Amino acid sequence: MKYCSYCGSKLDFRVPEGDNLPRHICNECGTIHYMNPRLIVGCVPVWEDRVLLCKRAIEPRHGFWTIPAGFMENGELVEEGAMRETREEANAEVDIQSVHTVYSIPHINQVYMFFLAKLKNLDFSPGVESLETRLFSEEEIPWDELAFSSVKFCLEALFQRGSSAQDSANLGHFVRSSEPKR
Amino acid sequence: MKYCSYCGSKLDFRVPEGDNLPRHICNECGTIHYMNPRLIVGCVPVWEDRVLLCKRAIEPRHGFWTIPAGFMENGELVEEGAMRETREEANAEVDIQSVHTVYSIPHINQVYMFFLAKLKNLDFSPGVESLETRLFSEEEIPWDELAFSSVKFCLEALFQRGSSAQDSANLGHFVRSSEPKR
Repeated sequence: MKYCSYCGSKLDFRVPEGDNLPRHICNECGTIHYMNPRLIVGCVPVWEDRVLLCKRAIEPRHGFWTIPAGFMENGELVEEGAMRETREEANAEVDIQSVHTVYSIPHINQVYMFFLAKLKNLDFSPGVESLETRLFSEEEIPWDELAFSSVKFCLEALFQRGSSAQDSANLGHFVRSSEPKR
Repeated sequence: MKYCSYCGSKLDFRVPEGDNLPRHICNECGTIHYMNPRLIVGCVPVWEDRVLLCKRAIEPRHGFWTIPAGFMENGELVEEGAMRETREEANAEVDIQSVHTVYSIPHINQVYMFFLAKLKNLDFSPGVESLETRLFSEEEIPWDELAFSSVKFCLEALFQRGSSAQDSANLGHFVRSSEPKR
C-alpha cells in the first residue's frame, strides 16, 4: 500500500497518536488505512452420515476437494455468505445448524468460519467453480486430495479424528483451532 | 475508494470478468481492490456467576459498558486478538473456553466474534480505553447502559435471557444471531 485510496497522495507508515502499531497514514487528507484479516465463510453440508464436497475447477488447488466456502462480501451476514457460497459452488440448499470450526491462518491474514449445515435435499450439482460434487462417508473422504488445511481440520472435527477430537470433547459441539504461526 | 493504493491511478468500478459484483479495479496496474467485512474479536470474561465489563473511556459510547473487544489485527489468531483486547482494556488474563456468540452487522460491514473465557484471577483494572472495570452478576448488569447491541446480545445469551435463550437451547453451548438488515 503506497497511495491514499481517497485522495491519491503518497502514504506514510508510522504509529498514529494513541495507537501502538504502525499504520498507513495519509498526511494530506488525514485518513488512516487500517489493514485487517479477511473472513472466509462456508458450510459443512451433511446428509445423514455423509458430507458434501466439491472438486475445485479453479486455482488455487484445481482438482482438489473442498467444502463450499469463499470470501465473505460486504453487506451480508456470516451465515448468508456461507449459504451463498454453498449455492454458488454446489447448487445446494442448506439449513445452518451451528458454527462448526473457526480456523486462523495468521501469516496470510485469513480467518475461516465454517457452519455445520443440513442439506435440504439431494438436489445438488457442480457450480461454475466446481468440477464435481458428491457425498462422502468418513471412509470415503479423500484425505490426501483435500484442497486446504482448513478443510482437513474441519473434516477431522466432523468425524472426531486426530487431535481435533480432543478439542471437540472439551468444547462440546464446537471445535476451534488454528495453524501454528510461522 | 477513488485511487489505486498500489500505483496511485484513478480506479474504475465495474464487474470483473468471471465475477458477479462490481469491484474497484485499476486499469493501469490491473489490481482488483476487494472490500470485505472487518472482524471484531473479544472475550466474555467470567468468574463464577459474574462477568467482567469495562466502562468505555473513548468514543463511540463513552461512559457505556462493554465487554473487552476490538478490531482483529493482521498476523494474529482470532483467540490471540480476543486475549490481547482483554489485556489492553481490562488488564485481565483469561483462559478461552469456546466461541460464545457470532454477530453480524451487515450495514456497517462488521462481524463480532466473542469467546467465553474464564478469568485466571481477580487481578484486573482499567486499561487506557476504560474508565472502570468490574464484575457483574446477572441482576447487576446495567442493561440500559450497554455500549453496543452486540454486547447486549452476548450477555443475553450468557444468562439465557430473551429471544437468545431459544437459540441457545437449539444450538447447545453456542448462540448465534445477527441484527436485521436495514
